[in-house]
Amino acid sequence: MTDAPFAVPERFQPGEWLRGQGQDADIAICTRVRLARNVNGFGFYPTLKAEEATELVQVVNRALTRPDIPERLRIVDLTTLDELERGVLMERHLISREHASADRPRSVAVNDQESVSIMVNEEDHVRAQVFESGFAVQAVYDRAERLDDAMMGQMPFSFSEEFGFLTSCFTNVGTGMRLSVMLHLPGLVWADEIDKATATVQKISLAVRGLYGEGSRALGDFYQVSNQVTLGRSERDIVRDVGSAVERLMSWEREVREALLRGESRSRTLDRIHRALGLLERAHILTSEEALNLLSGVRFGVHAGLIEHVSVRDLNVALLLSQPAHLQRVHQSPLNQDQRDERRATLVRGLLGRK
Amino acid sequence: MTDAPFAVPERFQPGEWLRGQGQDADIAICTRVRLARNVNGFGFYPTLKAEEATELVQVVNRALTRPDIPERLRIVDLTTLDELERGVLMERHLISREHASADRPRSVAVNDQESVSIMVNEEDHVRAQVFESGFAVQAVYDRAERLDDAMMGQMPFSFSEEFGFLTSCFTNVGTGMRLSVMLHLPGLVWADEIDKATATVQKISLAVRGLYGEGSRALGDFYQVSNQVTLGRSERDIVRDVGSAVERLMSWEREVREALLRGESRSRTLDRIHRALGLLERAHILTSEEALNLLSGVRFGVHAGLIEHVSVRDLNVALLLSQPAHLQRVHQSPLNQDQRDERRATLVRGLLGRK
Repeated sequence: MTDAPFAVPERFQPGEWLRGQGQDADIAICTRVRLARNVNGFGFYPTLKAEEATELVQVVNRALTRPDIPERLRIVDLTTLDELERGVLMERHLISREHASADRPRSVAVNDQESVSIMVNEEDHVRAQVFESGFAVQAVYDRAERLDDAMMGQMPFSFSEEFGFLTSCFTNVGTGMRLSVMLHLPGLVWADEIDKATATVQKISLAVRGLYGEGSRALGDFYQVSNQVTLGRSERDIVRDVGSAVERLMSWEREVREALLRGESRSRTLDRIHRALGLLERAHILTSEEALNLLSGVRFGVHAGLIEHVSVRDLNVALLLSQPAHLQRVHQSPLNQDQRDERRATLVRGLLGRK
Repeated sequence: MTDAPFAVPERFQPGEWLRGQGQDADIAICTRVRLARNVNGFGFYPTLKAEEATELVQVVNRALTRPDIPERLRIVDLTTLDELERGVLMERHLISREHASADRPRSVAVNDQESVSIMVNEEDHVRAQVFESGFAVQAVYDRAERLDDAMMGQMPFSFSEEFGFLTSCFTNVGTGMRLSVMLHLPGLVWADEIDKATATVQKISLAVRGLYGEGSRALGDFYQVSNQVTLGRSERDIVRDVGSAVERLMSWEREVREALLRGESRSRTLDRIHRALGLLERAHILTSEEALNLLSGVRFGVHAGLIEHVSVRDLNVALLLSQPAHLQRVHQSPLNQDQRDERRATLVRGLLGRK
């Protein structure tokens, strides 16, 4: 196994998911596909025995680093990382919260661009993710399919003619695939149309949930649209379903943004956007919740051409580094909540404050 | 009678009361003394007859423009001004609200610096005010006394050996004098010690009230300390009483400001000050209430040396021009509330936004 690719704190550029480019990047932050696979001959989690787990991780990682695999991956043994380092990987969307906090042999394989991450011995033996900035449902699926085929050439995956791929949890049986698009929907939230919009998507059996935070309000106005059904729908169906739902939401969001900047609404919208900027430029204490929400307003303003001196890249770096693990890695030592809120404000001022 | 000295909109520099200089100007905005006088031979308001009123105004204004009067005054006939023009005079503290809205012959005599204003046919026939920026109780009294002596040389004031000067309302009988100091007390407000502080002053029979707004919270953290008693206390006593109470409040305010910028409080105080600045720099809608309160935070920050690119003069111009009448005069036409809030924000951004 090679060293962790995250020789923090030098490397704090956003990975693929926050690259801020690609199709419809003013609304679609990132498209992700995840395939759940299990290797024949090993028990499914949680029945997998401890000595089996170690062997599983070795077997999968050997397979992932063979020349036939179309991705150049570096293996990170999560058991050698401390909590903060695992937190950084989680905040970069490379591992799940469960994978970060589990207490068993496990690893993640990541490429340099952070557009591919393969968790080993998560809920399933193999959870392969492909990311692409912007709206790119077909592209991520195509790349994941090539990776899947190559992996199957190296290790036999549990597959049933009747059900398709077998997974630890029945909700993933079939394609084992979850395709999701992370959307920034400040227009729908501000115009109070978000509930109507999400209900429309849920009617066609897709899930919409806030990317951050619990409950109905999504912090930072980020929403994730994904398929719920993995059984009885082909991969092609899922790509089409998610794709068309996202296109509908994006055009709705665009209409609402325009309406918010027209007529009587314009002044209130400008006020909200620029107040958000003013606070980010000046505050000395920022909770992560407030930072996310203010950054949302500024992002809207930047894409609407109302704020010219701030780049989407600045916003994405601010978003990434505002998160607790990144923040503490930048600071190179653990911080309590009050210290984090001060440090976050200092960091955001440095990024967004007029130079 | 000469023309109105307020050939708006060209002239929107703050007058003496907002000059921002003088002793203790970091806390004491302005010192003012007001003398209530009535002219023998004319009925007291409200028994003064209409034809008498016209004559009274002429008699007083002739007296005020004689060479023996030590102030160079220009006479403004309030009946020739529209509501907005009278509002501007009121917002400049040159006339009272009652004088602005009354419906009878009346005038005000003002000097160029706006350090002297003499209302004619207000509640009393003559209400002479002297202003000086900063803490200057002795200076304003001395100047008012010279003016009073000179006025008495030109017109006989109603005076009783037993009671002193006679006034329309019994609360002013005696010296007819009200001495007040306008203080900016953000420290005491933020540290929640303002009630204790004002109670201390009220115990010695002085009045403390918010300069703007109703109820307990003074908008902009501006408080006015003044004598309540005009009978049985000499002018010298009043100068000493008000002076020592103000000195006590100022030293209390200084202690609290220092404490707010020390230790654990520092970060919260910096946050509050700089958030206020960020909002003023960026907001597109500002009510006058919010503007006053945010300007208070920035004023504190400027005097504490925390904000270097904003001058006290900028803040004073912003404070003055944020008021409804000034705002509409700058805009050269009446504005509704929403329009005022937008215009106010634009104006404040222009003044405080980084150039």
